[in-house]
Amino acid sequence: MTDSFGGLWAELAPIGRAKATGGYRRFAWGASDLLLREWFASTAQARGLDLVEDRFGNQWAWWGDPDRDGPGVVLGSHLDSVPDGGAYDGPLGVVSAFAALDRLREDGHQRVRPLAIANFADEEGARFGIALAGSRVITGLLDPDRARSLRDADGITMAEAMAGAGRDPGAIGPDPETLARVGAYVELHIEQGRAMVDLDAPVAIGTDIWPHGRWRIDLPGEANHAGTTRLEDRRDAVLSLAEVVTGTRAAAAHRGCLATIGKVHIEPGGVNAIASHATAWLDARGDNPEAVRGVIQDVTTLARAHGGEVHEESWTPVTEFTPALIGRLHATLGPVPLLGTGAGHDAGVLAQAGIPTAMLFVRNPTGVSHSPAEFAPQDDCLAGVSALAAVAADLTAAADLSAATGPAGGADRTGRAS
Amino acid sequence: MTDSFGGLWAELAPIGRAKATGGYRRFAWGASDLLLREWFASTAQARGLDLVEDRFGNQWAWWGDPDRDGPGVVLGSHLDSVPDGGAYDGPLGVVSAFAALDRLREDGHQRVRPLAIANFADEEGARFGIALAGSRVITGLLDPDRARSLRDADGITMAEAMAGAGRDPGAIGPDPETLARVGAYVELHIEQGRAMVDLDAPVAIGTDIWPHGRWRIDLPGEANHAGTTRLEDRRDAVLSLAEVVTGTRAAAAHRGCLATIGKVHIEPGGVNAIASHATAWLDARGDNPEAVRGVIQDVTTLARAHGGEVHEESWTPVTEFTPALIGRLHATLGPVPLLGTGAGHDAGVLAQAGIPTAMLFVRNPTGVSHSPAEFAPQDDCLAGVSALAAVAADLTAAADLSAATGPAGGADRTGRAS
Repeated sequence: MTDSFGGLWAELAPIGRAKATGGYRRFAWGASDLLLREWFASTAQARGLDLVEDRFGNQWAWWGDPDRDGPGVVLGSHLDSVPDGGAYDGPLGVVSAFAALDRLREDGHQRVRPLAIANFADEEGARFGIALAGSRVITGLLDPDRARSLRDADGITMAEAMAGAGRDPGAIGPDPETLARVGAYVELHIEQGRAMVDLDAPVAIGTDIWPHGRWRIDLPGEANHAGTTRLEDRRDAVLSLAEVVTGTRAAAAHRGCLATIGKVHIEPGGVNAIASHATAWLDARGDNPEAVRGVIQDVTTLARAHGGEVHEESWTPVTEFTPALIGRLHATLGPVPLLGTGAGHDAGVLAQAGIPTAMLFVRNPTGVSHSPAEFAPQDDCLAGVSALAAVAADLTAAADLSAATGPAGGADRTGRAS
Repeated sequence: MTDSFGGLWAELAPIGRAKATGGYRRFAWGASDLLLREWFASTAQARGLDLVEDRFGNQWAWWGDPDRDGPGVVLGSHLDSVPDGGAYDGPLGVVSAFAALDRLREDGHQRVRPLAIANFADEEGARFGIALAGSRVITGLLDPDRARSLRDADGITMAEAMAGAGRDPGAIGPDPETLARVGAYVELHIEQGRAMVDLDAPVAIGTDIWPHGRWRIDLPGEANHAGTTRLEDRRDAVLSLAEVVTGTRAAAAHRGCLATIGKVHIEPGGVNAIASHATAWLDARGDNPEAVRGVIQDVTTLARAHGGEVHEESWTPVTEFTPALIGRLHATLGPVPLLGTGAGHDAGVLAQAGIPTAMLFVRNPTGVSHSPAEFAPQDDCLAGVSALAAVAADLTAAADLSAATGPAGGADRTGRAS
């Protein structure tokens, strides 16, 4: 068996890699993102696939014509990264999709349904602060005006960045025509924890995305000179921040959730200035939404005790992938584990929009993600390709895809995504 | 009595003021700094003073010729600010110096010694992170290569910033010729605490600058995904930071010093990324150097317990102003209080370089400094002008200035300034 995975993987490796850290800095509509989009287009072209961009600029490479033959099976993920992210989060799904398609063709697979590979734009939200922008805009879960006006750290709006990349930001918006072509979406992704190590499984099927949200914590202080203000006269926002950070971890541990403060901003931020304001962003998730809400309540009480306030920036309830599709994957792959996850994915957004959706996870031996050290061994990656190829072969051979997938699971219970 | 103070003060008020906060953002070699330098030059020119720039770009406006008549009396301070600083820290000393000179001329004062007004560049270090750069470079206490290579938050070096402002960064360095012209330096400054409120005095004489320093605290973590990594598997640098912040305050309170963390940097700094590194800058001072050292020892122990390290970025021992000059000021002004301070000043650097030096402080009713709320009432400012004029009148009438000032106090005992 020849395999295209290794060659495709090697093509991506140098794009957007920061020499200083070894991590990737692939941000939406930036130079390395445009290179990645070119790579996607030329890889599709080399295979004779039909490349389509939707109303946000997500890329779709079709084998077969969904407008003639009806909705098809879509595999895919994203190519952008968090700051100094790893090589696998996103690209593993796209590269594995191309490799799975190549495998099907090499095996002489008789396709009944069309098959596509998708590259969702701006999944991580690293540049403009809102994750999953590409899938949210085309499903109507993110208002196009809000998306256009988001600003990056240099004050550049998403509209300006898109225009600079040769796109028409005025055209972005919900795209039911694109979504109607998707009979089923299966996203393969590296696992971002260590559950599969304990389960001793190279591949697992994703069942749901935990409820999760982001909150902004504002803590006031009083600017003053660090060299002359008595300790007892101070209102130091950094001290309040320290207590909120410690209290947040304690609340999460107590309630059995995940809670993280990974971004802070101090005003005025001078070495010899007592802080007049501290802002911290809280990411909280867990399999139990009541427990997550409890953590936010604890943190709010603590922030208020320091004169501060907590604002909800986003809240997404549990997102369940499509039960019948999960069952179908399970029947195809045999006894692989079923796994929920705390990470957000475009698959979750499509599930919320009523599209039959499932995920495959590939084992991560260290559990490290969003880091240059993120890693999956080649054997596990190839096991992922094999699983994805088997799933794609099964689904594209189905005369009636909607009967194979059943109704989507998450559409009615969720909806607030941003 | 007419007085030029109010008019000069009003000219400065709009320059570099941020509408959003009401605070000043006057950073070395930036647009507002260049406006302030123009203001200084034109204000000197309007009085027929001789404007000289030294080898760093500090501005000196001379009434009389020190190269012909020997060392003169210099009044002055700085015009730059911390981020969102107040109107008084720095500019009060420069404006009061011009107003004092105007007063002397109006009074028909018979000057024997030359008199100058100085504007020291980049006193706050807000842009490049090293305070007192202007006085340190010309006294040899800051290496010009190190100064040139300092970078601001945008990665611009001081050399590039100076070149962009039309200066020759290659020319900066020690400037003994400039320093030889300074027979005595008296810097007037707003008090940055509330001691003079308790003393019920609008003006005080500065006696010394407490020992003070800056330290960088590096705390390691492990980058990972906030949504998928179990709490017990995490090494979160923000959590370590919180404990170091809390511990630092406790150590300072225990040992009777001031210690402040007002600037932090988190890597990678994403909302959904566990921090892989936290850097905090610690400012510590006190009247007792042993106590300050003790705080640093406590913080180092704490940082090491979290796998971190503490690096000294600067340490300046106690700086005493010149005893005979202080005595002379006291004789001129009558029974005004004597006051040490925790804040650094160019006067301290000149004292370390062996120049006879003293300071005058003007009462600050709230004690607030390095903040838009910094304030001194007009009556107290005018009392400061009167005191400065009296001191300048006395010293410039001295046939033998070195006899009047005696030897500098701080030169032999100090020296490590950066």
